[in-house]
Amino acid sequence: IIREAAKVFNRRGSHGATLDDVALRLGVSKAALYRYVQSKQDLLYACHEEAMEIARESMDKGEAEGRNGLEKIQIGMSGYLREMIGTMGVPVLILEENALTGTQAEHIIALRDEFEKRMRRLVAEGIGDGSILTLNPKLAMFMLLGAVHWVTKWYSPDGPWTADDVAEALIEMATRGLAARPS
Amino acid sequence: IIREAAKVFNRRGSHGATLDDVALRLGVSKAALYRYVQSKQDLLYACHEEAMEIARESMDKGEAEGRNGLEKIQIGMSGYLREMIGTMGVPVLILEENALTGTQAEHIIALRDEFEKRMRRLVAEGIGDGSILTLNPKLAMFMLLGAVHWVTKWYSPDGPWTADDVAEALIEMATRGLAARPS
Repeated sequence: IIREAAKVFNRRGSHGATLDDVALRLGVSKAALYRYVQSKQDLLYACHEEAMEIARESMDKGEAEGRNGLEKIQIGMSGYLREMIGTMGVPVLILEENALTGTQAEHIIALRDEFEKRMRRLVAEGIGDGSILTLNPKLAMFMLLGAVHWVTKWYSPDGPWTADDVAEALIEMATRGLAARPS
Repeated sequence: IIREAAKVFNRRGSHGATLDDVALRLGVSKAALYRYVQSKQDLLYACHEEAMEIARESMDKGEAEGRNGLEKIQIGMSGYLREMIGTMGVPVLILEENALTGTQAEHIIALRDEFEKRMRRLVAEGIGDGSILTLNPKLAMFMLLGAVHWVTKWYSPDGPWTADDVAEALIEMATRGLAARPS
């Protein structure tokens, strides 16, 4: 359910999508869908929670396996993108303003802030260890997130590229923009 | 009107935003807004048309001034981003599926396809003239568009960065991922 719902939310926007759209996509009635899901908000929340969990695990792996800041980001981000495509069928979920409310919104925003802070710290680490050029960590983070999130708009699992292809080539290209040149 | 409407559409999504939101943002009544605008669809269409016009002019400038494929892209894309922030107050407008319909949708999608084809052609030109690494032009285009479009999600004109700062630094960083290394 989360997988198909994420596709619908991405395609139509969180505000535009309805539970009817999700039910249609799943090929079930809205009544049947309501047996599993309380509301559109809860479903959207579950999608975002799943996405942030994937992000956390991928960054853990990057930090454990990378030998410097640049490698940690490369491993973490390509794993994130690959896993998102694998689990959700779409790469990423974009959080629109006011799509979630109250404690649900607070919780997801806190997780996202933590993820962004972690990326900025890794960029700074890479600048420190010489693997990344001296640049603004926040801008570098936004550039990477943009390249990754945009995949949602154009990637199709039915197209010529596998999740692995896209994750690897895209992250390599984007992180090359950050990399210090080997001396 | 286009400027404030673009902000609202970006923030809430094309489906989520209403003419009420736009009127509220402009500080006028909905009735007053209706004197200038027929419908939300027409306003959204006008925003997208303006954005594609800015894209076309910026790419013209890039093609006229750049000395190779990479420079043409750099000049074109940084001009596009700078102009979008200047005119719209936000960097870019993201077209959601089904947000526009009929001939309006067809027209905007045709303009967008033309813009994307042009970018792919410039990447191929850069590979040919040695300014860009041998990579997939389509993937490179999507990486750049992602980096640029994402700016909508985080940039604030009230923040520390001017439109010039962001346009220059971001495009430099992103296109460095494409650039062949000087030999």
